[in-house]
Amino acid sequence: MSITELPPTTVSPAYERLSAARKAEVVRELSNVLGERYVLHSPYDLTLYEYDASIDRGKPDIVVLPATTQDVAEIVKIAGRYHVPIVPRGAGTGLSGGAIPIYGGIVIVFTRMNRILEVDVDNLRAVVQPGLVNLHLSVALGPQGFYYVPDPSSQRSCTIGGNVGENAGGPHTLIYGVTTNHVLGLEVVTPEGEIVEVGGTTYDTPGYDLTGLLIGSEGTLCIATKIIVRIVPLPEAVKTMIAVFDEMDDASNTVTEIIASGVIPAAIEMMDRMILQAVEADTHAGYPMNAAAVLLMETEGLKESVAEQIEQIVSICRKHHARVVRIAVDEAERQLLWAGRKNAFGAVGRISPEFYVQDGVVPRTKLPIVLRRVSEICEHYGLKVGNVFHAGDGNLHPLILFDSQIPGEVERVRQAGREILEVCAQAGGTITGEHGVGLEKQAEMALIFSDTDLRIMQQVRTAWNPRQLFNPGKLFPLPGRCADIKQL
Amino acid sequence: MSITELPPTTVSPAYERLSAARKAEVVRELSNVLGERYVLHSPYDLTLYEYDASIDRGKPDIVVLPATTQDVAEIVKIAGRYHVPIVPRGAGTGLSGGAIPIYGGIVIVFTRMNRILEVDVDNLRAVVQPGLVNLHLSVALGPQGFYYVPDPSSQRSCTIGGNVGENAGGPHTLIYGVTTNHVLGLEVVTPEGEIVEVGGTTYDTPGYDLTGLLIGSEGTLCIATKIIVRIVPLPEAVKTMIAVFDEMDDASNTVTEIIASGVIPAAIEMMDRMILQAVEADTHAGYPMNAAAVLLMETEGLKESVAEQIEQIVSICRKHHARVVRIAVDEAERQLLWAGRKNAFGAVGRISPEFYVQDGVVPRTKLPIVLRRVSEICEHYGLKVGNVFHAGDGNLHPLILFDSQIPGEVERVRQAGREILEVCAQAGGTITGEHGVGLEKQAEMALIFSDTDLRIMQQVRTAWNPRQLFNPGKLFPLPGRCADIKQL
Repeated sequence: MSITELPPTTVSPAYERLSAARKAEVVRELSNVLGERYVLHSPYDLTLYEYDASIDRGKPDIVVLPATTQDVAEIVKIAGRYHVPIVPRGAGTGLSGGAIPIYGGIVIVFTRMNRILEVDVDNLRAVVQPGLVNLHLSVALGPQGFYYVPDPSSQRSCTIGGNVGENAGGPHTLIYGVTTNHVLGLEVVTPEGEIVEVGGTTYDTPGYDLTGLLIGSEGTLCIATKIIVRIVPLPEAVKTMIAVFDEMDDASNTVTEIIASGVIPAAIEMMDRMILQAVEADTHAGYPMNAAAVLLMETEGLKESVAEQIEQIVSICRKHHARVVRIAVDEAERQLLWAGRKNAFGAVGRISPEFYVQDGVVPRTKLPIVLRRVSEICEHYGLKVGNVFHAGDGNLHPLILFDSQIPGEVERVRQAGREILEVCAQAGGTITGEHGVGLEKQAEMALIFSDTDLRIMQQVRTAWNPRQLFNPGKLFPLPGRCADIKQL
Repeated sequence: MSITELPPTTVSPAYERLSAARKAEVVRELSNVLGERYVLHSPYDLTLYEYDASIDRGKPDIVVLPATTQDVAEIVKIAGRYHVPIVPRGAGTGLSGGAIPIYGGIVIVFTRMNRILEVDVDNLRAVVQPGLVNLHLSVALGPQGFYYVPDPSSQRSCTIGGNVGENAGGPHTLIYGVTTNHVLGLEVVTPEGEIVEVGGTTYDTPGYDLTGLLIGSEGTLCIATKIIVRIVPLPEAVKTMIAVFDEMDDASNTVTEIIASGVIPAAIEMMDRMILQAVEADTHAGYPMNAAAVLLMETEGLKESVAEQIEQIVSICRKHHARVVRIAVDEAERQLLWAGRKNAFGAVGRISPEFYVQDGVVPRTKLPIVLRRVSEICEHYGLKVGNVFHAGDGNLHPLILFDSQIPGEVERVRQAGREILEVCAQAGGTITGEHGVGLEKQAEMALIFSDTDLRIMQQVRTAWNPRQLFNPGKLFPLPGRCADIKQL
């Protein structure tokens, strides 16, 4: 059968909610495998697993906590027999609703599969379980002088399995790439409950790059049970600096010129006035509250090269009218500057009851015009917006403030979000940099992919996951979403 | 239909050789699209396309030279109507037989699709056609201060389309990764003749990473017609050095210690005595002819960091008893050292009528033991072997010398090659670093993949390319290979 002859997959598969009797049966089978303790099914126990860090919600029927790959394979087989959807969940920090069980079913939580299985320093590899918290790997490697590069802002809680599912990025993506650039191989469980290894410990394994295909597939193709990652030596020197601007455009143009000059810092983050004020009130990191924009930049490497990079960056900042350029004098100040950035989303919580984060990408050179359009769009809808983002990558994160108690406000927020993504797509960019498509951006996939492109992708899903029990309703539009999704 | 329910694909599809009448018909249809001039079909014209840089051979029925994506799509549709296999071909420099039309059919040659379509320096992107010679891109970018990183030793002739098909590497893979790390998006023609775009200009596009899947798929899933690549600024400083050792183990241990120390040079290449003698006789690059091994190393970046790296590398080399450490004093000497390395395969042609290059990968720490085993295996079969390889990556290239006029020698060479790959696999490595599987290593896939792993891969092929007209007989074993393959 040809990939283009496969049936279209936009028709919703039938997921009947489990009856009480049937649910009891599934719970019993799962308990036989995992022990009763690791099969949650009371309404109270399930509440925690209804939401993640997005704005959607959905109730699971059962939550399971496997301890081994074999457990996961058995769970998948049981789910298959009862035709029950399966949603894998790391720490629930995802921003696009990837871990929301919109059709109910079984949520697999990886809390118990959180071990570092192997560290091979000489060959710069480690093997970990999916439930390992991102930061814990670097903490464990630190004493030996190594770390794991991808550093989402949620790295203190998010898991490496979740990072693999969403192909997560972070501030240091600029120079080091996203999760897919740091994962060399996976052990996965397929929708049939088979255990398969893809990739390996080397850079380029023969045959198809299934590792690349599976990373970022948002739980729709497989469930990762073991992850082989690259580890790298800690840099000899790290310097962190901020540059303060009275005009957003000056900050944007600084970013473009730094990159084009050939200096590629490890990170270039931008924060605008609204964010600076929120961050400063919250973290007291020493950010100016009256500036139009601040760039937080970091360079790392050998001492001498860091010193030279800093010199070049300072001179480019000055050329673009930076009011102040300040280099952190010690590790404490450096950590404080980063704490301000990494807690920015939380800090915004102080000034608004709710907020919605967008995640568009544009070519760096288009930053000035796109940031202006973001302001105009939000102004048009009477919404406040702040920007805190990976400027070096052109990866925007506009935070739109709102209050769902105000009638119509949520719809205006969603509409503004959509228009921002349209602007990003028109500028030659894309609709998500690192947060994933999930439930949030299914419709927006059409902004950047043709019907043929989307059909090819959906048919890859159909080939792997024909009954669509693995994370159904994500990535591609499905009609008839369940009624119990929180209707914003 | 489930991916695991798809029919097994190891059964050879029926490719009947085209009858003269039918061939005339196909030629006529192709000529209507391309013009007669760009459809080659006389035995004389076809001779050139029977072989690539591997040791296999196969006669095409027709060779076509398309000028546009639309041409390629039309060719694919015509081939589909007549059930004729299609093999894409770049410059024919591949070492694993990927461009050999073992079942005959149509070979698509991309000589006319060799343009740079777009260069966007500010956003570090370029868009090229598949027939562009690898080095031509860097040459074109040079005056603006940029280059394209992947640099296979054949870069003066190989094409970027071919590099995409094989996921090619090169000496600088060590720090910068292989082709897949430098390609962000593709326009491809599917086996149905549809034109599809995958990926884009940004790092992480939403949905499945089909770009990753297609790169390195060796022509079995699609034909690339447009390639979006990353370009990077030329480094401020580059220093190249050689270290001369009297013992292979000292050279190997130096490599391991350099990497583990956190200094990651841009390249670490190793050459053994046999190769040094051949290279020196050919290129007069100033390599010692009586050493056991030489490491050719390069560091690049900002001036200061290069100076510091060189200092650290020299001290590690001395610790491991390097007899001499010499840094190229100027660009001319640097180019000469590299010319010696990049012409090594050619130089070996001076001392042996034929040679066979293997391409295994092992963890760096296993280099000493594996190199010893390579010697023992070749000695056992009475064969001479030289080693010239990407030591930093643990990517071996043993060159086994032979003379096919000596009865039984070819079979001994193949057997030695097989045993070397077994040793690599047992050492936790893999069977090809950068040359691909092609025709050469189909059987060896089983050394590193389980039956389930291989079935999943083959079923991906079946889903995309159900009639297996795209480069049939490659990557996975197919019984009943054609009789006109040169039987070594």
